[in-house]
Amino acid sequence: MTGGFHARKLAIVGMGLMGGSLALAIRAQADHITGIDSDERARQIALERGLVDSATDDLYAGVNRADVVILATPVRVIVELLRMQLGSYLRSNTLIVDTGSTKQDIVDAMAALPIGVNAVGGHPMTGKENGGIDEADGALYRNRPFVLCPSRRTTPAARLRAQAFVESLGALPIEMDAERHDHIVAGISHLPYLLSATLVATISNRAQDDSTFWALAAGGFRDTSRLAASDVTMMGDILSTNTQAVATLLAQFRMQLAMLETMLIAGDQERLGEMLLPIQAARKEWAQKYENGR
Amino acid sequence: MTGGFHARKLAIVGMGLMGGSLALAIRAQADHITGIDSDERARQIALERGLVDSATDDLYAGVNRADVVILATPVRVIVELLRMQLGSYLRSNTLIVDTGSTKQDIVDAMAALPIGVNAVGGHPMTGKENGGIDEADGALYRNRPFVLCPSRRTTPAARLRAQAFVESLGALPIEMDAERHDHIVAGISHLPYLLSATLVATISNRAQDDSTFWALAAGGFRDTSRLAASDVTMMGDILSTNTQAVATLLAQFRMQLAMLETMLIAGDQERLGEMLLPIQAARKEWAQKYENGR
Repeated sequence: MTGGFHARKLAIVGMGLMGGSLALAIRAQADHITGIDSDERARQIALERGLVDSATDDLYAGVNRADVVILATPVRVIVELLRMQLGSYLRSNTLIVDTGSTKQDIVDAMAALPIGVNAVGGHPMTGKENGGIDEADGALYRNRPFVLCPSRRTTPAARLRAQAFVESLGALPIEMDAERHDHIVAGISHLPYLLSATLVATISNRAQDDSTFWALAAGGFRDTSRLAASDVTMMGDILSTNTQAVATLLAQFRMQLAMLETMLIAGDQERLGEMLLPIQAARKEWAQKYENGR
Repeated sequence: MTGGFHARKLAIVGMGLMGGSLALAIRAQADHITGIDSDERARQIALERGLVDSATDDLYAGVNRADVVILATPVRVIVELLRMQLGSYLRSNTLIVDTGSTKQDIVDAMAALPIGVNAVGGHPMTGKENGGIDEADGALYRNRPFVLCPSRRTTPAARLRAQAFVESLGALPIEMDAERHDHIVAGISHLPYLLSATLVATISNRAQDDSTFWALAAGGFRDTSRLAASDVTMMGDILSTNTQAVATLLAQFRMQLAMLETMLIAGDQERLGEMLLPIQAARKEWAQKYENGR
């Protein structure tokens, strides 16, 4: 534990699934919560459900006098917000934490904030199949890892406060540098999305000649293709801010695939089995730990 | 409807998930059901749960005087059974249907059965994450497609009887030739398995240097990697009896992946989005139909 967290005025930019859930989870630790969103319906729901004390589409009014600002918009918008006037709107010692899915571009943008503003990159490893404020859930962050990436604007005090903030959400803070984070999520999240989308593209292509492809697809296809239904704008943002790490992981994936295919085509079922057994064991071991940790 | 189905003596070779569930589903339509399995525990459970009227490890005794024989073992065992003495054990007009996941090798083996034995290849598009007789479930086949592939030993009467058999399980018969079947399942089942296994291999490899890969993996990875936990012997059997179709689909997958990667590396987010949107739409459309049909 790093001590309790308390905010006088907490401003959340972006009233979607992440921002709305965060408001619910942090309710008791903030005297006043302001939700900032350009979408009127999102603001209305945030007010109606009591997620926030006030809501506005005016960034300046929203963050004015806030001691904590959470950026919970898509990655590219976070980067733009940091590069634009946001820094000049904030008083000294304000803490900024974001929830973007890639971190290098964001901590780079944080580095250019005025001295005195404290900023820590954040990535909560949680979510739901459907986004939007309607899905806001105070338990979304509970027991889930919340990566914190220091920026050039992370003072030792800001680091501790960000950790206390994460703990007050019920999440598990994990510190690492942005490059390492982006490499890891390229493997566990962006590569799976690309494989899922490419699988669906391949089947769509085949199904043009024979729609039975769709008719016979079942549970295995459903699981493997689920990520292909992810929000395209969000995934485009994420991929385009993590191109290099994704390309590295893709190259490693292709190498592994070629090895399996070689065994398959050679008809070497024994060697193929020797390759597949440790893969099966690794998946089972991970799944057991993951389900126990939930 | 193709009329009711009735068997005097129905023999099921292989008392696993598929065979056990089939016994439960067909109970009322057979005067006597015999379960044949080399595993004593499987036979015992089949008897204790009342799935079968008798159980034996003796193939000859089990299929003797049966008018319907179901082969519900792994694919390679089905092929071996068909090539070995099974044909000579059966009386004329016995109907054989199998439940193997690939069909060309099986209908080829069926073609060599004695004239007078009727044999139809079958593939029920259903299953569970965990196999074994303990998971046997009379509803496993209900409303699921059950592909039927004619062989050189499929008479018009056998074809109708096999359809009636499938309908009596509550499943939906779909007729197609074995080559087309194998091409389709290569896409919707074997390719997804290989992608899933290769993803896990890639992450395992990276995690050797940094175990945080495992610690941060969450729901998206879980879904995409689920098939990697499939039974390795079963998948090895399936892949090795469908090598050519799998290789064809893999080549098409690689082409699609290269197209997406090119857009990604070029930083052409607009074109990338144009490629991802129809993929997202196709996945959503399929999922809606699939969930409605269950």
